[in-house]
Amino acid sequence: MSNRVIDRAELLAKYPELVDPMNHPRFTGIPSFFRAPVAERADDVDIAVVGVPYDGGVTNRTGARFGPREVRIQSTMMRSYNQATRAAPFTIARVADLGDAWPVNPFELVAAHAEITSFFQAIVKTGANTLAVGGDHSVSLPILRAVAHSGPVGLIHFDAHCDTGGNYQGSKFHHGSPFSAAVEEGLIDPKRTIQIGIRGGTIVPDLWKFSYESGMRVISIDELMERGVDSVMAEARELVGNEKTYATFDIDVVDPAFAPGTGTPEIGGITSFQAQHLVRGLRGVNLIGADLVEIAPSYDPTGNTGLIGATILFELLCVLAEARAARNDALS
Amino acid sequence: MSNRVIDRAELLAKYPELVDPMNHPRFTGIPSFFRAPVAERADDVDIAVVGVPYDGGVTNRTGARFGPREVRIQSTMMRSYNQATRAAPFTIARVADLGDAWPVNPFELVAAHAEITSFFQAIVKTGANTLAVGGDHSVSLPILRAVAHSGPVGLIHFDAHCDTGGNYQGSKFHHGSPFSAAVEEGLIDPKRTIQIGIRGGTIVPDLWKFSYESGMRVISIDELMERGVDSVMAEARELVGNEKTYATFDIDVVDPAFAPGTGTPEIGGITSFQAQHLVRGLRGVNLIGADLVEIAPSYDPTGNTGLIGATILFELLCVLAEARAARNDALS
Amino acid sequence: MSNRVIDRAELLAKYPELVDPMNHPRFTGIPSFFRAPVAERADDVDIAVVGVPYDGGVTNRTGARFGPREVRIQSTMMRSYNQATRAAPFTIARVADLGDAWPVNPFELVAAHAEITSFFQAIVKTGANTLAVGGDHSVSLPILRAVAHSGPVGLIHFDAHCDTGGNYQGSKFHHGSPFSAAVEEGLIDPKRTIQIGIRGGTIVPDLWKFSYESGMRVISIDELMERGVDSVMAEARELVGNEKTYATFDIDVVDPAFAPGTGTPEIGGITSFQAQHLVRGLRGVNLIGADLVEIAPSYDPTGNTGLIGATILFELLCVLAEARAARNDALS
Amino acid sequence: MSNRVIDRAELLAKYPELVDPMNHPRFTGIPSFFRAPVAERADDVDIAVVGVPYDGGVTNRTGARFGPREVRIQSTMMRSYNQATRAAPFTIARVADLGDAWPVNPFELVAAHAEITSFFQAIVKTGANTLAVGGDHSVSLPILRAVAHSGPVGLIHFDAHCDTGGNYQGSKFHHGSPFSAAVEEGLIDPKRTIQIGIRGGTIVPDLWKFSYESGMRVISIDELMERGVDSVMAEARELVGNEKTYATFDIDVVDPAFAPGTGTPEIGGITSFQAQHLVRGLRGVNLIGADLVEIAPSYDPTGNTGLIGATILFELLCVLAEARAARNDALS
Amino acid sequence: MSNRVIDRAELLAKYPELVDPMNHPRFTGIPSFFRAPVAERADDVDIAVVGVPYDGGVTNRTGARFGPREVRIQSTMMRSYNQATRAAPFTIARVADLGDAWPVNPFELVAAHAEITSFFQAIVKTGANTLAVGGDHSVSLPILRAVAHSGPVGLIHFDAHCDTGGNYQGSKFHHGSPFSAAVEEGLIDPKRTIQIGIRGGTIVPDLWKFSYESGMRVISIDELMERGVDSVMAEARELVGNEKTYATFDIDVVDPAFAPGTGTPEIGGITSFQAQHLVRGLRGVNLIGADLVEIAPSYDPTGNTGLIGATILFELLCVLAEARAARNDALS
Amino acid sequence: MSNRVIDRAELLAKYPELVDPMNHPRFTGIPSFFRAPVAERADDVDIAVVGVPYDGGVTNRTGARFGPREVRIQSTMMRSYNQATRAAPFTIARVADLGDAWPVNPFELVAAHAEITSFFQAIVKTGANTLAVGGDHSVSLPILRAVAHSGPVGLIHFDAHCDTGGNYQGSKFHHGSPFSAAVEEGLIDPKRTIQIGIRGGTIVPDLWKFSYESGMRVISIDELMERGVDSVMAEARELVGNEKTYATFDIDVVDPAFAPGTGTPEIGGITSFQAQHLVRGLRGVNLIGADLVEIAPSYDPTGNTGLIGATILFELLCVLAEARAARNDALS
Repeated sequence: MSNRVIDRAELLAKYPELVDPMNHPRFTGIPSFFRAPVAERADDVDIAVVGVPYDGGVTNRTGARFGPREVRIQSTMMRSYNQATRAAPFTIARVADLGDAWPVNPFELVAAHAEITSFFQAIVKTGANTLAVGGDHSVSLPILRAVAHSGPVGLIHFDAHCDTGGNYQGSKFHHGSPFSAAVEEGLIDPKRTIQIGIRGGTIVPDLWKFSYESGMRVISIDELMERGVDSVMAEARELVGNEKTYATFDIDVVDPAFAPGTGTPEIGGITSFQAQHLVRGLRGVNLIGADLVEIAPSYDPTGNTGLIGATILFELLCVLAEARAARNDALS
Repeated sequence: MSNRVIDRAELLAKYPELVDPMNHPRFTGIPSFFRAPVAERADDVDIAVVGVPYDGGVTNRTGARFGPREVRIQSTMMRSYNQATRAAPFTIARVADLGDAWPVNPFELVAAHAEITSFFQAIVKTGANTLAVGGDHSVSLPILRAVAHSGPVGLIHFDAHCDTGGNYQGSKFHHGSPFSAAVEEGLIDPKRTIQIGIRGGTIVPDLWKFSYESGMRVISIDELMERGVDSVMAEARELVGNEKTYATFDIDVVDPAFAPGTGTPEIGGITSFQAQHLVRGLRGVNLIGADLVEIAPSYDPTGNTGLIGATILFELLCVLAEARAARNDALS
Repeated sequence: MSNRVIDRAELLAKYPELVDPMNHPRFTGIPSFFRAPVAERADDVDIAVVGVPYDGGVTNRTGARFGPREVRIQSTMMRSYNQATRAAPFTIARVADLGDAWPVNPFELVAAHAEITSFFQAIVKTGANTLAVGGDHSVSLPILRAVAHSGPVGLIHFDAHCDTGGNYQGSKFHHGSPFSAAVEEGLIDPKRTIQIGIRGGTIVPDLWKFSYESGMRVISIDELMERGVDSVMAEARELVGNEKTYATFDIDVVDPAFAPGTGTPEIGGITSFQAQHLVRGLRGVNLIGADLVEIAPSYDPTGNTGLIGATILFELLCVLAEARAARNDALS
Repeated sequence: MSNRVIDRAELLAKYPELVDPMNHPRFTGIPSFFRAPVAERADDVDIAVVGVPYDGGVTNRTGARFGPREVRIQSTMMRSYNQATRAAPFTIARVADLGDAWPVNPFELVAAHAEITSFFQAIVKTGANTLAVGGDHSVSLPILRAVAHSGPVGLIHFDAHCDTGGNYQGSKFHHGSPFSAAVEEGLIDPKRTIQIGIRGGTIVPDLWKFSYESGMRVISIDELMERGVDSVMAEARELVGNEKTYATFDIDVVDPAFAPGTGTPEIGGITSFQAQHLVRGLRGVNLIGADLVEIAPSYDPTGNTGLIGATILFELLCVLAEARAARNDALS
Repeated sequence: MSNRVIDRAELLAKYPELVDPMNHPRFTGIPSFFRAPVAERADDVDIAVVGVPYDGGVTNRTGARFGPREVRIQSTMMRSYNQATRAAPFTIARVADLGDAWPVNPFELVAAHAEITSFFQAIVKTGANTLAVGGDHSVSLPILRAVAHSGPVGLIHFDAHCDTGGNYQGSKFHHGSPFSAAVEEGLIDPKRTIQIGIRGGTIVPDLWKFSYESGMRVISIDELMERGVDSVMAEARELVGNEKTYATFDIDVVDPAFAPGTGTPEIGGITSFQAQHLVRGLRGVNLIGADLVEIAPSYDPTGNTGLIGATILFELLCVLAEARAARNDALS
Repeated sequence: MSNRVIDRAELLAKYPELVDPMNHPRFTGIPSFFRAPVAERADDVDIAVVGVPYDGGVTNRTGARFGPREVRIQSTMMRSYNQATRAAPFTIARVADLGDAWPVNPFELVAAHAEITSFFQAIVKTGANTLAVGGDHSVSLPILRAVAHSGPVGLIHFDAHCDTGGNYQGSKFHHGSPFSAAVEEGLIDPKRTIQIGIRGGTIVPDLWKFSYESGMRVISIDELMERGVDSVMAEARELVGNEKTYATFDIDVVDPAFAPGTGTPEIGGITSFQAQHLVRGLRGVNLIGADLVEIAPSYDPTGNTGLIGATILFELLCVLAEARAARNDALS
């Protein structure tokens, strides 16, 4: 009816690739994740991308509460197709931005986690898979409480730290302990858990003993660099097998030269090229969900950390969408 | 129906001020302008906030195409009420983010301008008033072509530069000439035009002769500093009278210590306190539209320029909403 | 015995002003506050400078936990004498850096506050006065619990926000509410409280009604700019009279062009020149303690916020040392 | 005659290596490229280094118009001899800074390109070879129109993107299409064209089909990382053979951790070490010109992008000077 | 003869204001000061702009050796005419960039200073006036040794510090003492010296006693703010009278919010607006030379310090050119 | 006796790992190196960590005088145990921060060096080993004069430059020549010297001829990348044998993408992962001291350079502590 709609429709008709907001010029539009549709509910969604702007579990440099916004902004640089793997996630899955699972009660960690779980349970009930953006790493625990509702899942974990610590400064729950807690709560199977990229100093010699004693496979940065990404990911795929598996990517696995915007940087990390290939190595895994955590943009003057985050989120979306499509194919 | 909605509804019921997305924690949500509703059409909207991410008219440092996004992001820091003026713009007007008037054909300036005009015409037809965020200052011209459809309007113009230049490097239209063009096209009345904050060197002595010869009132930074904001704005209100008036705010009127993120910074400018008071001086003017231009975030490492931009946009919204309400009152 | 001690002693003997670590070249030495002596206990100390690296009460941008370190670093730029006021704080008072009151249990806000109170109580018992560096503004409450042990004190409060809010997101205590809580706990006398520099939008119209209803004097930024610093501080001195008074300086009272490194920046603030003169206006007040809060260095690429913080801390030290000396004189 | 000349001449006589401006302390002097002589005309020049400060073909983040200045500034860090290859470009060739080919008519892309071509034609007529610094990648096309005047040349192209796209937003010419246009205009031979470092997502699956269908050799980043620089460059040398060849280096082939200052960053790129070795692999190629493009310094807070650019420009100069010397030797 | 010259000449003929390099687009060209002509000798020059990239006299944060380059770069933002004062310096004086007076022997301060003096003597002998850009403030001394060859001159000195200290760490000469040394050497007349903007702490109470005891007029920042720029400059003009006077502008007189890029920042300084008006207050003074010092760009992430520096240099050029023209008029 | 001590002691008793200041939250405490004890004398110290904030030998970008402070700050991110090598340096050695060897006479390079030597002699006399943090690379020479008091030592040198130059601009001593001087003074044995990571252009072809002619082993970056870290370090260990050896680490051996904060960056360097492994390759060497130099934090907006510096300092501490323990074991 208005001139505007008519005019632009005609114009855009000449450039069909510009109809999709994801293909608009990168500086335009309101930045949802990938400029995908924003949805209030997950009913018609296959993959629900969710922000979790909570960093109350951080023990050092804070700011990961701004991670979802930064990744949304940088995700405007993403495009529809994965040139390297030929994946077309938006073609094979209905992807939407479900907004943020922000805790209304942020001042108490346990209560905040409960709110996050509730938010994800509502999505999981619809059958959608979740792709979350933290927030600090403590948020993986409440997400797993929703996602792993039917028994322990496998875990492929990219990180500089095992995050299987115990009580710290009076709290069992914090960003250094989600995965010991997840084992104790029966959410992940330590025998089907692999932790990749571990490095850095420790304040006690056996800081990560839970990982070793519970049977997790720990791949240090030295082993990763020695064997290479392909070999390590082949082992990861074999370890988790065909059963349900969750993937969690802490941005601090990437070297701080590439990704300075994080709370606990450790030098001597992987490149963004290696990060992409680690995630592509998830192809074939029966992924039921994934998260990307610990992006703290106030430490990131160039935006590179957010850009890596957005690109890794796209790579996670590709493998998650393919895993879901494979499950659908198996059902039909 | 889902747990999530129920849970959060209950929670939010305890905190009624948190129901409005604009009052959510600042780090949450997808950043529309003021986190106001996003609308495809202006039919049910009083004030349409529109991004104009176009900087093809820039002659020096570019990047204002990212202005709308930066202002959207920083506008998450805004709140509903104006403590200083007691204005409550979201209570007295329906405010929505209409998205971006981005030109599908950006490589040709005249065509790009035509697309912008068309976008604004569609909004103006619904009776909504527009509050635009550029982009470079050349975009004020195509906006005025839509907004001043029924005859020349008054103009209150905050800027370091008069922007009434002539041809430059082969183009009549660029970010240094919108207002000479607007006079020639009968969009603004030079006798009801006031330009405030003018300063800086010039490449020819009579660079802004159009302003003087056409009868515009030019207030140099020296006169502004000497007389003060209140005196100058009283003159401005008297000059434009009760007829329709448009306001345009170039961020470079503010000193670059406050607002470094712009294309043509000029030292010796006003403070952000003075900027707020200049805009508040528009109270009582019969405003029919306004714009904020020339924010180039790549030159703004702290985000201060965007924050000033978002706050000035809020101040413009306050006076524009009040002007519209006053017109409605007069009609009833 | 060693060559080194002898050599440097001889050398330094030639430059007596270099004996004091505070006068060493600015880039040398381990940065305690003002490079003053570090003390474990306050027994032989008149003014105890204490860091409070806690920001668990923040509702928006975090990072004030790094405030004490940043102020220590920038305080190496300070010198012994105040050229403007002729104050010589290190001559009239024994000043020491008492280290940090960091909460061992940071994950629960109420418990963390209790630890902070305990830390300050131990100092107050020795008779020393405290000069604290936060941390977020919530820390003023636990400090006042220690400092105002013998009845409500007056309060001179420099801030963009009144910080007299109520419950927020499930917590009575946060960085927007310390002074309503302090009134309720009988720590400050609202009739002897003045809040200077207030501005910014609010999410509800009567956000700071507690200030008005309890009888605090609220000086908006507009009143401050209109009347000037001297007039306002004369009123402040009269208001608090000769009784015990505490001063609290939130760095966000300063305009973000000067001090971007803070969690809740509000444009339209004061200059650093005005900030210095506000603090100098405390001369003659019976100050028993002071704090400086809300410096978040990750938002401060130039270090200017920390430099202003360190300079304001020096100005606070000058007036606090003079107030203490005046009390001592009165006793003798 | 003056003291100064005598004094400094005597002084400099003691330090013969300091006579050459290129060897002056890095912080001195007016920054021409390599602090080489500035020339108005190319008559006595072998290698003309030219800036092309034009970024009107950019579709995303702008600012490459400041690339020539930034590279000039950072080129003051360069030195005369290449320690790795033993090349001495300033000894074997007369190198001069010819200034900037800036378009007088920048608002129309086609006209601007014509001006650039004209500028380079004037140089090419003198027999000099050109080494250009953009500017966006669209400028390679007008340069090739001047340089490849006697028939299609080979092309060795380092980039994250093939830049062989078609019409985009109404323009056939932009920074994503110079090489499809160059094939169509008979300026480069697609069979003698190799594109190295290609990666990133695409908005349509066959975005770069022109490269494949026209017979260009496309080396993805994965193939490059798998085979290594030496193998790929051996193939490149074989592909182009002994005929005239042009080299074009888009800085975005380098990973954004190394070179963030560019318009379309793609993570997962090469290191600066690999970049140097790619260019050194041009040794032996019959190079007749080269360019370096897409450096946008406003996105580069450390200056690293400019430093890599200046160093790559030096490496390009080495191989171009050697190629020219080889041609001269062949003639004599 | 070449196409290029013809083409561009024709083009430029259409835009006569573009013939002058100073009016070319700001991002083009090799950045000499103001993009003025570069000259090896001062014989045909009225005002010689000279860089002095030496910071060996710095006692704290270094980097002013990069000041001349930064000011050259930012001076590309300057234009030919002064809109506020109507000065046209390039019309009434022949202005050239004489390059840098860089010391060949930088490791010994006294020798370095001697080289700087020699460089300026060569210029002074031609009758040209010098406008210098440091470098640290110690360079004013060797410049004065050349410029004040015929007896002590008056001095108008803008600075946060008096710079009339004594020996520091074993050296009589450093950036805190040039003007006590200049008095002792008979280069300046303390009775015709005024120091404006003084502030900050001091390591000893009477740090600047030389200023007071020698009879200099010291205007503290408080007096300047109280009386205003016009009153203070009227006093300055009266103090120096009609005799020869030199002006020196230390960028740290400007507040670090405006000019963070300096070695010894002091908060509570002047705005850039005040800085411009201070320099304009030199109109009518018999200026024989001027300098601008202490710009350290590595502490200046936005470039604002350099931009203020370049603008102040332009203002200094205006008053210096007018003073010279007035002397010439008086002679004729 | 005070509440505070009791309270915190009880609290800390629950968290024994928190008793050690090194394990306190990273944002707390006054930043000595590793938050180790600060000592005035080395009598009870095995490894004395010393800052050398002197950069008077720099020929290009300055600021390394701030290196010790930056490394102290970033060293708060370090932890007690080396997860990769299982080293526990604080368990096997008494480590203390001895403060800064700052020259009282900084304006004369030779005198400053003498002061530094004197400072280190005093430490060496106590039998402690020194781990120094510069400052520019010229400081290695005065340190070696103290440390190599009983005859020439071996040297393992990580750097982009050989630093065996001759006179430069009138000074034999500067940051490009410490190791030619050290050979000439009999402090190091060139036959037991290896220089690793050499690259970059040179102003004369044979700039580093001293290295080659004196018999040092020079490993270029190309050889290092070709052979790998393990092979090169095996050669290094064999070359120096069991005799006393010193290690010096210039941060510029690391690529500027990782470590931009340095005075003479050279692209094409090593990663931080390689840097860690180079230092770990010192295991088994009879190390008697080490230094880390050339960190200039004003060029380091993210703090990454300081973080790499702190981590490398920790790695150096590990191998130095182990070497000392091995000597002690051999004695017992």
